[in-house]
Amino acid sequence: MDNLFGDLPTGPETRERIDCLLDRTGLRVERIVSTGQASPPGFWYDQAEHEWVLLLQGAAQLTVQMPDGERTVRLAPGDSLELPAHRRHRIEATSVEPPTLWLALFWPAGAA
Amino acid sequence: MDNLFGDLPTGPETRERIDCLLDRTGLRVERIVSTGQASPPGFWYDQAEHEWVLLLQGAAQLTVQMPDGERTVRLAPGDSLELPAHRRHRIEATSVEPPTLWLALFWPAGAA
Repeated sequence: MDNLFGDLPTGPETRERIDCLLDRTGLRVERIVSTGQASPPGFWYDQAEHEWVLLLQGAAQLTVQMPDGERTVRLAPGDSLELPAHRRHRIEATSVEPPTLWLALFWPAGAA
Repeated sequence: MDNLFGDLPTGPETRERIDCLLDRTGLRVERIVSTGQASPPGFWYDQAEHEWVLLLQGAAQLTVQMPDGERTVRLAPGDSLELPAHRRHRIEATSVEPPTLWLALFWPAGAA
């Protein structure tokens, strides 16, 4: 998978595809392709790293636990979302057609 | 400019547009839009930070000074390029129509 738009699924798959594009000290870049996957009921991501996601194709809906309560976030192509470390969130829905194409950046939680 | 694909030029502009999408300790993310700009003759970028660029639209040609000599790199949509700190490089050409849309990540040069 040399090209971000290469080797995309042509239909639903059983799980998300995650390809690491770059893994360096201080930064990891992943391509994630979802075809309808969502987080299991009651599951929340709670990550030690900071994350920033950019949706490039498809559509997704997330729930994010903000300091003042839960927030529904809908992402369309070109939309991005910052998820500071331990900002609990879950994926409610992702599009199948077209597949949901994410670029996800992860970097260490150090100083703010 | 909330959306990566929003507010794109509709024709040539006098200079590149650079919008900072995220600026945190350890990571900066920029959207760069080029419409035919290239580096001036004899100019080389020589940056203290590591960089990773992803071309999302348009086309570009760069010259990169690799340890074993100069290399011409042509980027099409979905192509990416890692530019470690002080890896000298220059932009030879960028497309006008469509505008060349880059996502550029910068992170500190620390340990390899």
